[in-house]
Amino acid sequence: MADVAARFAGIVGVGNLLSGNEVGEDYAHDESLTCEPHKPAYVAKPGSAEEVAALLVAAAEHAVPVTARGSGSGLSGAARPREDGLLISFERMNAVLEIDTANQVAVVQPGVTLAQLDAETAVAGLAYTVYPGELSASVGGTVGTNAGGMRAVKYGVTRNNVVGLQAVLPTGEIIRTGGRTSKVATGYDLTQLIIGSEGTLALATEVIVKLYPRLPYGATLLAPFGDLDQVMQAVPPILASGLAPNILEYVDNLTMAAISYNEKLSLGVPDEVRDATQAYLVVGLENRDSDRLDGDVERAGELLSELGATDVYVLDGGSARKLIEAREKAFWTAKSVGADDVIDVVVPRSEMPAFLARVRELATAAEAGALGCGHAGDGNVHLGIFCKDPEKRYRLLRDIFADGMARGGAISGEHGIGQSRKQHFLELEDPAKVALMRRVKQAFDPTDILNPGVLFG
Amino acid sequence: MADVAARFAGIVGVGNLLSGNEVGEDYAHDESLTCEPHKPAYVAKPGSAEEVAALLVAAAEHAVPVTARGSGSGLSGAARPREDGLLISFERMNAVLEIDTANQVAVVQPGVTLAQLDAETAVAGLAYTVYPGELSASVGGTVGTNAGGMRAVKYGVTRNNVVGLQAVLPTGEIIRTGGRTSKVATGYDLTQLIIGSEGTLALATEVIVKLYPRLPYGATLLAPFGDLDQVMQAVPPILASGLAPNILEYVDNLTMAAISYNEKLSLGVPDEVRDATQAYLVVGLENRDSDRLDGDVERAGELLSELGATDVYVLDGGSARKLIEAREKAFWTAKSVGADDVIDVVVPRSEMPAFLARVRELATAAEAGALGCGHAGDGNVHLGIFCKDPEKRYRLLRDIFADGMARGGAISGEHGIGQSRKQHFLELEDPAKVALMRRVKQAFDPTDILNPGVLFG
Ligand SMILES: Cc1cc2nc3c(=O)[nH]c(=O)nc-3n(C[C@H](O)[C@H](O)[C@H](O)COP(=O)(O)OP(=O)(O)OC[C@H]3O[C@@H](n4cnc5c(N)ncnc54)[C@H](O)[C@@H]3O)c2cc1C
Ligand SMILES: Cc1cc2nc3c(=O)[nH]c(=O)nc-3n(C[C@H](O)[C@H](O)[C@H](O)COP(=O)(O)OP(=O)(O)OC[C@H]3O[C@@H](n4cnc5c(N)ncnc54)[C@H](O)[C@@H]3O)c2cc1C
Repeated sequence: MADVAARFAGIVGVGNLLSGNEVGEDYAHDESLTCEPHKPAYVAKPGSAEEVAALLVAAAEHAVPVTARGSGSGLSGAARPREDGLLISFERMNAVLEIDTANQVAVVQPGVTLAQLDAETAVAGLAYTVYPGELSASVGGTVGTNAGGMRAVKYGVTRNNVVGLQAVLPTGEIIRTGGRTSKVATGYDLTQLIIGSEGTLALATEVIVKLYPRLPYGATLLAPFGDLDQVMQAVPPILASGLAPNILEYVDNLTMAAISYNEKLSLGVPDEVRDATQAYLVVGLENRDSDRLDGDVERAGELLSELGATDVYVLDGGSARKLIEAREKAFWTAKSVGADDVIDVVVPRSEMPAFLARVRELATAAEAGALGCGHAGDGNVHLGIFCKDPEKRYRLLRDIFADGMARGGAISGEHGIGQSRKQHFLELEDPAKVALMRRVKQAFDPTDILNPGVLFG
Repeated sequence: MADVAARFAGIVGVGNLLSGNEVGEDYAHDESLTCEPHKPAYVAKPGSAEEVAALLVAAAEHAVPVTARGSGSGLSGAARPREDGLLISFERMNAVLEIDTANQVAVVQPGVTLAQLDAETAVAGLAYTVYPGELSASVGGTVGTNAGGMRAVKYGVTRNNVVGLQAVLPTGEIIRTGGRTSKVATGYDLTQLIIGSEGTLALATEVIVKLYPRLPYGATLLAPFGDLDQVMQAVPPILASGLAPNILEYVDNLTMAAISYNEKLSLGVPDEVRDATQAYLVVGLENRDSDRLDGDVERAGELLSELGATDVYVLDGGSARKLIEAREKAFWTAKSVGADDVIDVVVPRSEMPAFLARVRELATAAEAGALGCGHAGDGNVHLGIFCKDPEKRYRLLRDIFADGMARGGAISGEHGIGQSRKQHFLELEDPAKVALMRRVKQAFDPTDILNPGVLFG
């Protein structure tokens, strides 16, 4: 073991290799509520793609499993290392290498956080439009999970916004995929294959992301509905209207109460309206022109009323920001009130009413709770699950996942499978597809050193 | 051979299996200018995914190579069959199965043409926004090539617009990938991997495509420039403006003259302007609101003048349609005037001026011609190559491709590698990437029956 540590230290420098007791508790887990922490045997903090490549070659020779870590904010245990393993933390590779305004892309190292990228692109009047709830997340981690977030309804998820990678293969080769172009038809799309592969196929050491003009005018509307079904039914017409909302979230009444309380939110919704509300729709609009924005706000207000909203509140800047931040923190709220798990099934958006009704039935039958909010525009439902007994919870989740899949959805819309959903994934997914994915994994990683135990058994 | 034919006929029905002399000349080629026709031994026209699966199993047993064919409008020879092979033509699987307005998707069989899908979505006020120049192309074929086209500048290419597939693996298994949702984080993205794989990994038997609201108001601006460089330099600011053009094409003066002559176009550009023009920019704008469109047209006109356009013509509906159609037919024009090849290198759009300048130098040195037009907004340059000698042409193309790649681009933006670009691809591409792609191919197709000779040697 000392040998291996010395080998790793020789690659990244003694100061950038931790082992044994030097390894802090933070490296032992991500934010999954159900994966027990595992302290890794080694943590290496490489400074370059070449160092990452050398680490992978050394790890393969010594049969040490390797897990990549960005900021450890993932929710599926995909960044939880193995106890006998090497954790490669990208914290030192955190430079925004270039903001290329002519091609509207940024070239960044994987350890760059979304908050940092947001600040640096703002200076150029541009934006990277992937905003998951946790802006401490790293760009490399979002590539790993194919992160979504609130603005995906307009701009798409990570895979729609990453156009190129530099990546290190488990065999130690450094490749470049894609580029500063929005299209390529030259062989298989390795960029897309690596995105969302949860650190099992290759490690991203440079990421080229698409940027959009940062639109100067924005507004947020809050629409309470007396009925959860109605909220869900309102989603397709809003998307068909052409208003192109950049946020389209639903929050159920209990979740709204909890996040309002936790974040000391006051949204100006009168008590009697609040009491008669089953769920809220939050609609974000943006424009490069303030008159056009005003027109859109008016049209959206009318449309929401036609679709059954009890009322429509146009929030002022401060309240809007607070509401969005509180919504982003819904995970922490769920955790603080004792949720036993948080899941994020995705279904075709037309299926959301029936899916949520079925979830309520299943939860009631299991004497469990299932509350939440979600990216309504994407059919991506985030539910806090309250059910202490692990076996009962396993069965409840299986029934919920199976129902979502039967409706044409999937177990996860953006959090991933990682370690926490693996058993359900392997139980419910088409075996022919799983077998094919295993063969693809083998094509990249013949010795199975990259994140073994994630996705597959 | 009679055995094999009987086996195939047993699967699809005698009337849907052609062999020997029954095989028409049309099945022997696509539209590549350089791939000699190959009449396949068999043509099967399956009616279902199950029949496709049975064909693949039978083909594997008899070691008969299989090529899929949509409409045969591809430009890289990827649908050219093997002479000893089976061509699976999807012409009978041509139903639009569903236009799902709530989820804004259509579910279609692979043989549906883009023209047919355009007509059927129009009825619902929606549009499938992938419009390559040839609307007789099939949806399955566009999945095969990851087709782009003029509107990709706003809506992206095929991979950005296909959300799910039913696909038959070479092993005969039928899988479903993705779905009627815009995001999934549940295992590797097989949809994306199959898109653009030129019929070498799996055959699509059902395709779920994203639809957008069909915007009712549109305008087309034509801007002549005295200098090709200036045209190219105008592209980034137009895209940064937020005007979100749905068309942003350049056409060089000789190509404009040729297509105008061929298509009897008269665009109202005075002779003296035309004579002083090196290239034109064509800008399409669309909106759901006619006042907003007018505002955008005005702003775009100002911007084009600031960027150096000699003049700006807002074309009336008829002329605009004719110009766009003529531009779509640029390939036929190039062919009719004797182009020896047509290529479509993609480079970062900021590199277009330098790339085109270098192409001119290389062509001059080779005593060849290189003229064209292209999807300027995407950095995707379509060039008709005039150079009779095959060896000289091979070297010229190699130098052009290598230059494009050195600028961060790729051999093809949307036409693909197929058979016509394979030698250059294998010569110029990073061997580590090619080796990885071969392993991925192997993971899907262990007996190498799907389109052998396409992409790889
Ligand atoms: C409060 C809260 C709100 C959240 N909201 C959202 C949301 O709205 N939408 C959403 O999608 N997610 C959300 N998340 C989840 C999380 O932020 C995302 O999954 C994010 O992508 C994780 O980034 P990270 O840097 O923390 O990755 P990590 O947790 O460190 O790693 C995630 C995965 O990526 C892999 N990985 C890390 N770096 C690399 C690399 N360089 N190359 C290859 N693989 C790598 C890891 O091995 C692991 O498999 C939320 C999390 C929290 C705590
Ligand atoms: C005049 C003209 C203009 C053009 N303009 C453009 C343009 O602007 N942009 C652009 O991108 N292309 C353009 N093209 C090229 C062509 O239209 C596209 O490549 C189109 O995608 C081909 O569709 P197809 O049905 O004709 O496919 P085919 O040529 O029949 O096949 C193309 C590839 O797809 C595979 N394939 C076919 N069906 C399936 C299936 N069901 N499952 C899996 N693989 C399958 C084939 O094996 C082959 O590899 C143009 C072509 C012409 C002739």
